[in-house]
Amino acid sequence: MADQDARSGEDKRPTEIPVLRWEEPPEGPVLVLLDQTRLPTEEVELVCTDPAGLVEAIRSLAVRGAPLLGVAGAYGVALAAVRGFEVEEAAAALAGARPTAVNLAVGVRRAQAAHQEALARTGDAGQAASAALAAARAVHEEDARASARMAAHGLALLDELLPAGGHRVLTHCNSGSLVSGGEGTAFAVALAAHREGRLRRLWVDETRPLLQGARLTAYEAARNDMAYTLLTDSAAGSLFAAGEVDAVLVGADRIAADGSVANKVGSYPLAVLARYHHVPFIVVAPVTTVDPHTPDGASIEVEQRPGYEVTEVTAPQVAGAGGGIPVAPLGTQAYNPAFDVTPPELVTAIVTEEGVVSPVTSEALAELCARSRQVTIS
Amino acid sequence: MADQDARSGEDKRPTEIPVLRWEEPPEGPVLVLLDQTRLPTEEVELVCTDPAGLVEAIRSLAVRGAPLLGVAGAYGVALAAVRGFEVEEAAAALAGARPTAVNLAVGVRRAQAAHQEALARTGDAGQAASAALAAARAVHEEDARASARMAAHGLALLDELLPAGGHRVLTHCNSGSLVSGGEGTAFAVALAAHREGRLRRLWVDETRPLLQGARLTAYEAARNDMAYTLLTDSAAGSLFAAGEVDAVLVGADRIAADGSVANKVGSYPLAVLARYHHVPFIVVAPVTTVDPHTPDGASIEVEQRPGYEVTEVTAPQVAGAGGGIPVAPLGTQAYNPAFDVTPPELVTAIVTEEGVVSPVTSEALAELCARSRQVTIS
Repeated sequence: MADQDARSGEDKRPTEIPVLRWEEPPEGPVLVLLDQTRLPTEEVELVCTDPAGLVEAIRSLAVRGAPLLGVAGAYGVALAAVRGFEVEEAAAALAGARPTAVNLAVGVRRAQAAHQEALARTGDAGQAASAALAAARAVHEEDARASARMAAHGLALLDELLPAGGHRVLTHCNSGSLVSGGEGTAFAVALAAHREGRLRRLWVDETRPLLQGARLTAYEAARNDMAYTLLTDSAAGSLFAAGEVDAVLVGADRIAADGSVANKVGSYPLAVLARYHHVPFIVVAPVTTVDPHTPDGASIEVEQRPGYEVTEVTAPQVAGAGGGIPVAPLGTQAYNPAFDVTPPELVTAIVTEEGVVSPVTSEALAELCARSRQVTIS
Repeated sequence: MADQDARSGEDKRPTEIPVLRWEEPPEGPVLVLLDQTRLPTEEVELVCTDPAGLVEAIRSLAVRGAPLLGVAGAYGVALAAVRGFEVEEAAAALAGARPTAVNLAVGVRRAQAAHQEALARTGDAGQAASAALAAARAVHEEDARASARMAAHGLALLDELLPAGGHRVLTHCNSGSLVSGGEGTAFAVALAAHREGRLRRLWVDETRPLLQGARLTAYEAARNDMAYTLLTDSAAGSLFAAGEVDAVLVGADRIAADGSVANKVGSYPLAVLARYHHVPFIVVAPVTTVDPHTPDGASIEVEQRPGYEVTEVTAPQVAGAGGGIPVAPLGTQAYNPAFDVTPPELVTAIVTEEGVVSPVTSEALAELCARSRQVTIS
């Protein structure tokens, strides 16, 4: 089950609730999550004491974001094992909580495999549970380490491209610690620049229709005391025209073999604006985002999402009451692609944990992936 | 005072309430307005029986849009005169209802001057009231005629630029009959294409932060049975990339002498996207929009609007309850320019009631304005 422990979001200074953590109080181990459905107005902790509670948290989007789901799934298997639940059954339920989330299933499987191996080897349930927990911690740490490496590579690139310093960075959607076991991808680079005193301003696109920028990125920026300003997605044009943007940093949902980047809808217009204004457009993503089986941008299937995301506005407070507020006439059809595709010629660089690809070519990407596999295998 | 007469917006087929009309029922003349604050979910008529009711309707934005305010103001003076109110006092109150709305004051002054002239000439209050009403009707008709001429010139241009027909037009913000005594500017061109069977699709940008596209343009498109689709502003990039946009049509708030166009924020990114994709970007506006005293784009002062328009979402239903719903952390600052400026080199053509300027140059614009003044004087 999952208990809730609310802390008021009224304080000006955001509190420091980790996005996800494993705790071992006297009553037994628990997985504690920051309930993302209540952000940014409330910081509420969700305490999962059994796998069913975590499945519900995943289904309700209290925990979300591809890499973070992998971490959560692995801890879920560990929770089942440590608490004495049926591990295979729990793993199946966790992996199926969001069927299209590949990372979730991968994280679950890794902890499950560690559990099975230890059980077969030692015959001891306690040792098998410890192995599952160790695997979950490894997934978590690897993700954090990848974030840190992307941040370091990305900051070095920013410093190289913008030697004057005082970076003014524009970002879109949410790519920070709310979607990652670490500090994220594009957001982690901006955060690294902030910590080094080299971030002058983080411009945050609100990111319609679901407002992940307003709700989540602004929240993460405030939590980290960054100098940030929110804007509607189409106000970015005025910022470019005024010379107020030094670089664009975005994450990626998928990168094709030719370097075409699928990311949250609204990324491509930023890439075109950046090109028109001679501003670098930088994509930050782990190597696993590169899909060698997708040859090019045209091969990326664009998911169309329900029109009501556009024809109605929702907010945590409203969604809680069940449904959005209509802002368009009844019966209005909406075009609502989940993401768009930016061709490689508009991408200045792709930053990964294994290094930077710039200029973006099929060959350079293939080489990076080969190097990454070698690192993983060795 | 102003009475309200609600018609349900639940019917699939929108009803045909005019945006503004003068009526003379047995109880005495009235000005009937469509209450724009209730759109698109409710079509409510606001019946003004005295100037104070109209002042309140203007202040509450029940009636809005530069040219339409001029028409409303002129009728307000006529209403005062016909109903026996103090005309000079009513005129001052009406002209001051929204101090920055130039057209409002111009419309009021025109009806007021006609009233004064007739009163001085005939000494008869009834004849003076008739003169004020005739002046208001003239303002209304001239505006409607200008719309019709812009629509005709714009459609001819579309047909010339896109000989294949089946136009797929993208528009931003609201530029139809809700802001005009006629059928508007950019929207009027799309409507003319629709009536001639040559509009395949009207793509409607929702137009954050105030959602005039979702609320008002979608409403006007539905009312006219046009094939329209709503989208978030940043999804326009995907439409261009997919080759789904044949032309962009927008209005203008102000046009500088060099042809720089100030319009609702989000217009400039569309102009950059249109250029990148070799799609015509067409501005439709009356000649009065051209301001010869503003030499260039840099001279246009950009109004910054309150941040809460971005950090909170509002809808008629919510606003009625007093205030929006926060979607960003408390204390979040927002960059919220009301409009942006598109340089002349990105504007394919400026369509006015006096004809089309293309390519857009200072000389061609100056010539158009000179011709327009001649027409007005002669």
